[in-house]
Amino acid sequence: MTNTTTTDTTNTTGTGRPRSVSAYAALTPKAPLEKTTIPRRALGEHDILIDVRFSGICHSDIHQVGEDWGDGIFPMVPGHEIAGVVAEVGPGVTRWAAGDRVGVGCFVDSCRECDNCLAGLQQYCTGSSGTVFTYNGVGRDGEPTYGGYSTQLVVDEGYALRIPDALPLDVAAPLLCAGITLYSPLTHWGAGPGKKVAIVGLGGLGHMGVKIAHAKGAEVTVLSQSLRKREDGLRLGADDYRATSDPAIFSELAGTFDLIVNTVSADLDLSAYLGLLRTGGTLVQVGAPEKPVTVNAHALLVGRKSLSGSMIGGLPETQEMLDFCAEHGIGAEIELISADQINAAYARVLASDVRYRFVIDASTI
Amino acid sequence: MTNTTTTDTTNTTGTGRPRSVSAYAALTPKAPLEKTTIPRRALGEHDILIDVRFSGICHSDIHQVGEDWGDGIFPMVPGHEIAGVVAEVGPGVTRWAAGDRVGVGCFVDSCRECDNCLAGLQQYCTGSSGTVFTYNGVGRDGEPTYGGYSTQLVVDEGYALRIPDALPLDVAAPLLCAGITLYSPLTHWGAGPGKKVAIVGLGGLGHMGVKIAHAKGAEVTVLSQSLRKREDGLRLGADDYRATSDPAIFSELAGTFDLIVNTVSADLDLSAYLGLLRTGGTLVQVGAPEKPVTVNAHALLVGRKSLSGSMIGGLPETQEMLDFCAEHGIGAEIELISADQINAAYARVLASDVRYRFVIDASTI
Repeated sequence: MTNTTTTDTTNTTGTGRPRSVSAYAALTPKAPLEKTTIPRRALGEHDILIDVRFSGICHSDIHQVGEDWGDGIFPMVPGHEIAGVVAEVGPGVTRWAAGDRVGVGCFVDSCRECDNCLAGLQQYCTGSSGTVFTYNGVGRDGEPTYGGYSTQLVVDEGYALRIPDALPLDVAAPLLCAGITLYSPLTHWGAGPGKKVAIVGLGGLGHMGVKIAHAKGAEVTVLSQSLRKREDGLRLGADDYRATSDPAIFSELAGTFDLIVNTVSADLDLSAYLGLLRTGGTLVQVGAPEKPVTVNAHALLVGRKSLSGSMIGGLPETQEMLDFCAEHGIGAEIELISADQINAAYARVLASDVRYRFVIDASTI
Repeated sequence: MTNTTTTDTTNTTGTGRPRSVSAYAALTPKAPLEKTTIPRRALGEHDILIDVRFSGICHSDIHQVGEDWGDGIFPMVPGHEIAGVVAEVGPGVTRWAAGDRVGVGCFVDSCRECDNCLAGLQQYCTGSSGTVFTYNGVGRDGEPTYGGYSTQLVVDEGYALRIPDALPLDVAAPLLCAGITLYSPLTHWGAGPGKKVAIVGLGGLGHMGVKIAHAKGAEVTVLSQSLRKREDGLRLGADDYRATSDPAIFSELAGTFDLIVNTVSADLDLSAYLGLLRTGGTLVQVGAPEKPVTVNAHALLVGRKSLSGSMIGGLPETQEMLDFCAEHGIGAEIELISADQINAAYARVLASDVRYRFVIDASTI
């Protein structure tokens, strides 16, 4: 099943014909990623062709390659933290021109008609197509989708976001998933001046949470297993940093936070974290544990607390997030790698050994 | 440990001395309730003496007698759905006069100084005393509290509520727990015109939820195990009534409700119920299952959903609820019993054989 042929990936086709592009793919479930070629559709009326410049590595890429969340579509080209430049536009495109700096996040299409799509919550599309995810999905044309670990991408013009000039493309790439995943709940649940926010876990997601919550004016505490990354956390904007391995923090900080965003997928004692909330507070899950989560109902009842979930963000909010990050000088903390380092990077992500996001230089794909 | 002496319960004492009153108590854990006498404190400066007229039987009375939620204080006089008339007032009392119609709910005191007390959320008091529950609690004077299955009660004037003249005292009694337990989350999460609300379970709590949600203008669906009480549900104000024993309803009603209030303490598949919520919807637990509750994190993430808890309500909101119920002609549906039927009533509550609340006629105590 391996495919090591070196196909000519030059764009020999015009707007009207599909093209073949270089990509890194897992050819079978759990397989290491290797270089291959994939088809990109011919530019439709409202499509744009994007030259990918950078593509972030999200933990969920590893889950999907590993089929941890269900059957995958193979070959699978992961990548939904994509920053690039518009190379070509379809005849009906009005929003973009060649040279524009654009990002593509976790989805590339949706039904465009359901209440959620109309409300700009395309990530929760309830239409028959559902949200079309950027990879490991099926487009409305019935074809599989391939993600950002590739040199070029074709998407509908409405599903690309503008990356402001103030944001370098490499540190902007992870904003398209990690950034919006934290920005959306922090915004929805009102992180801002006078509010105390805890971010559980200082990884790819968590470090964006610290930066964004701090920029929104909230008082930010990192709750991490250990104090190993404490200096980083404080430098990124945290006001406090506590080790959850110390059981005393659960009494010391009881009733402290208005909002806790849990970025950790591992099994946590969520009832204990609910105890850290003030009356009316919310604990938001943004990571998706494989196992069901369990809480003590009393921990919800006493103090009218909520255990909530939030998944990425819709197109308007993603644009708002990019503009907010540009205004506040927020990018991801990244380790730039070449494509041949992807498998090594996956191993390091699994070992929590990255500060804080690997980003692939797409010129090496 | 039994106590069958017939003590003189006449109020021979003046304001300044404690009194002994008739009550029904469990003398030991899980024991049947029997007639006994209990002390009531001398009226303090701001205390009022209430002649209890009616006292509702709440399922939680049975849990507490049975020590299902932890150690109890015995003898235990349950009852926190109390409707009566002011008999006497302490010298500093300004709010009440003899003859006033009053109710007492689940708590009779709190610290009065913490943020929650100051915000009128005394049920979530975080002060050192905590919320002083009406029975099976310890007052700020260090004495055990005894509930409404008794002829008289002494409480601080600030912890009694006015029962409007339009509400008969017998059907008003259950409003003090069952009523506010549903009114508070329905209000907090915005049940009203244009909103679709589901009430899970049509029992003592659920039937109040149907009446209140309907009066607030929401479209109300009852989700019950069977269609056995369907006619009742529709008569009480439900627009629809579905049997959860039919798995098809979970696909038919997927994405329907803005708010679901779960009054059932039994183990339910909450992830399935989360699937019935619209994007941004909330599933509120008001019953307290003994076992932890388990949900699939994806069921929260996809659609930004919340699993929340709510416990009774604070004093201002309880008064608001009583006024609302008076205005809309809402009382509980009750079966009036004499005190010697309490143990039989407990057995029937455990068998879900009551439509919909037993209320003790306190003149028989």
